[in-house]
Amino acid sequence: MTTEELILSMARDAREASREVAKLSTEKKNRILCRVAERIQERADQLKEENRKDLEEAEKRGLSRAMIDRLTLSDKVIKGMAQGLRDVAVLPDPVGEVTSMWRRPNGLVVGRMRIPLGVIGIVYESRPNVTIDAAGLCLKSGNVVILRGGSEAINSNRALGAIFSEVCREEGITEKAVQVVPTTDRTAVLELLKLEEYIDLIIPRGGEGLIRFVVENSKVPVIKHYKGVCHVFVDESARIDMALKIAYNAKVQRPGVCNAMETLLVHKNIAEEFLPQIYEKYRHAGVELRGCERTRRILPQIKEATEEDWYEEYLDLVLAVKVVDSLDDAIRHIEKYGSLHTEAIVTENYENAKRFIEEVGSSTVLVNASTRFSDGGQLGLGAEIGISTTKLHAFGPMGLEELTTRKFIVYGEGHIRE
Amino acid sequence: MTTEELILSMARDAREASREVAKLSTEKKNRILCRVAERIQERADQLKEENRKDLEEAEKRGLSRAMIDRLTLSDKVIKGMAQGLRDVAVLPDPVGEVTSMWRRPNGLVVGRMRIPLGVIGIVYESRPNVTIDAAGLCLKSGNVVILRGGSEAINSNRALGAIFSEVCREEGITEKAVQVVPTTDRTAVLELLKLEEYIDLIIPRGGEGLIRFVVENSKVPVIKHYKGVCHVFVDESARIDMALKIAYNAKVQRPGVCNAMETLLVHKNIAEEFLPQIYEKYRHAGVELRGCERTRRILPQIKEATEEDWYEEYLDLVLAVKVVDSLDDAIRHIEKYGSLHTEAIVTENYENAKRFIEEVGSSTVLVNASTRFSDGGQLGLGAEIGISTTKLHAFGPMGLEELTTRKFIVYGEGHIRE
Repeated sequence: MTTEELILSMARDAREASREVAKLSTEKKNRILCRVAERIQERADQLKEENRKDLEEAEKRGLSRAMIDRLTLSDKVIKGMAQGLRDVAVLPDPVGEVTSMWRRPNGLVVGRMRIPLGVIGIVYESRPNVTIDAAGLCLKSGNVVILRGGSEAINSNRALGAIFSEVCREEGITEKAVQVVPTTDRTAVLELLKLEEYIDLIIPRGGEGLIRFVVENSKVPVIKHYKGVCHVFVDESARIDMALKIAYNAKVQRPGVCNAMETLLVHKNIAEEFLPQIYEKYRHAGVELRGCERTRRILPQIKEATEEDWYEEYLDLVLAVKVVDSLDDAIRHIEKYGSLHTEAIVTENYENAKRFIEEVGSSTVLVNASTRFSDGGQLGLGAEIGISTTKLHAFGPMGLEELTTRKFIVYGEGHIRE
Repeated sequence: MTTEELILSMARDAREASREVAKLSTEKKNRILCRVAERIQERADQLKEENRKDLEEAEKRGLSRAMIDRLTLSDKVIKGMAQGLRDVAVLPDPVGEVTSMWRRPNGLVVGRMRIPLGVIGIVYESRPNVTIDAAGLCLKSGNVVILRGGSEAINSNRALGAIFSEVCREEGITEKAVQVVPTTDRTAVLELLKLEEYIDLIIPRGGEGLIRFVVENSKVPVIKHYKGVCHVFVDESARIDMALKIAYNAKVQRPGVCNAMETLLVHKNIAEEFLPQIYEKYRHAGVELRGCERTRRILPQIKEATEEDWYEEYLDLVLAVKVVDSLDDAIRHIEKYGSLHTEAIVTENYENAKRFIEEVGSSTVLVNASTRFSDGGQLGLGAEIGISTTKLHAFGPMGLEELTTRKFIVYGEGHIRE
């Protein structure tokens, strides 16, 4: 079978399976999730064995330490996957929820009911735990999933997918509910992206390169975010202690993730007091600052920021700093250079807080809290399948609800249109 | 200026204008809608004058009677457009609505707030009233719109667009809130479809050919439906009088629209009683029936349905009829041949009603009501910008709410992540 035939047949199986999976009871889905969790832990040794093959190959190919870390199925990662599945099992089932219902003047009763999207393709890199996390969320939301991980994790991903299918079989449901693409052939991704007839949504997870490749080649709708150029604006009325805490946390707590701050905006009337203090904190943490002219008048020891710095997602202990004249200036800067991901204001001023919340158009907007809270788990969605910075369908962190759509349901008594 | 440059400059203006339009107060938006309504009626003579140019050209080009009807701006159509705007003015403003809000265990308060999508492109055919209807809905939902109507309506569309922009100017807001593409050059559409950086959504309205052209050429997300192959299933427990009324209404009341029934499914246990009666009613209305073998055993005088008939959207007084063994058979037929648009069951059986509602995956599913109710106005959305049969973002009739997305808003008290 060619790769093309293989992917087409997987996609057809997925569409067929989606009718069955959409109708599964909540009880059945939760039972499968919990049994997969159990099975993963029972099979830890076998999983680590398969993972070892990937790790040996990775060493041979000279992958970076960071890549190898992400690739490793340690006992801790395995336990984390199992716990993740149990966490999803206890979340409410979105399928069948009637989000609203109303009566029309003519007596028709109209409602909107959540249903699964159908078949979801996930294209991701490195971390094999995505296989289990994504499969769990898709099953819980009544969707069928086709998983295409990176070639470097192929043995781990196949082993994890096999466990999911095995439990599905034992529970008497189609083993095609979760399918891992078994080949590392790169054309497999291109094939997946063509099959709009069988696949309803593609979610790419990984670096900007992977995401651009998927967007440019997909006929299937894609939900994605390219990058997170997140801002914190320290308003003139900010409490200095709070601003220090938030600006430090947003940059330093985990600099390599998309919701970490990349640019700090400081109101001119608080800059002289605030900047030297945050500089000291950052210096201890090893953060490199790049400032605008006015910032460098206060902190002459730091580098100059270029125009490119304002667009940059460093994902590292580097931060661009700009002094602005007003809230309006801050908002204009975010509109011009931002990525619609996450922005925070630190302020004690009621009107500025209200305006920032209303006027900043990013997918998550915070007052007096770190940008690091822009995360499905932290915001209370229970789990996260990805983040969207495109506005269609979902905007911001996506949980189970975003893996569904809503149909109209209508109850009549013989109603006809006149 | 080339067409390419023109469209790019319109799209850039639209993106710029979208920041202003997103922030307009409800009062201001409603005032503009009501003043445009007034102005359209005051300028009726001038509008009809411009429309006459289009009509003369249409006669010359030998367009069909139906096309010319759709193109005509009669006093009734003008009054209808004005009333449509006033109807939209009284609808609730979706922008700024917080659809839910909750408190996290750590005290963070998280909510979801509706915001406009940004810039919407509408590509449509013939009917110039779409210019006003779509512009009104986009403005009310805080979006900027670029309207690209058919070349046959160019004078009418430009005149209508000019009135909208004129009122915007008088009200002190950007006249770029509503822009009509002033050229009939076909490359203008292709250009629009490329500008993903400036346009957030394209909604095509027209025949299947137009829609396929847009989908195949667009880099911007498209919400569309190709066709409506709508079904009515008459269950064995149906009340004959109700089934007759609904089957008649769904086919005959307005056969040329997407929510008209195209295939009638009849349970075998009621077919002998029901089919001859509905046949008589259809015969009087001039409906041509095409039946399966079992239908033709009861109605030998009708044509045989071919496999193609089950996929067909006749948009005419033609109907395919099939006798099925069970509810399951009916659902399987709909899954195989349907277009995810609208399906109805006529039944007195509680379990079958419940199963039909839950298991049929189309965007509107009705019990004991005509498929003709699948319409934004009829379902209570207040107005309709289009219908979606793709599941992402919107599924079914789309109103003001579907022209928005939701961002996360977060209120903290100095929260940081540990």
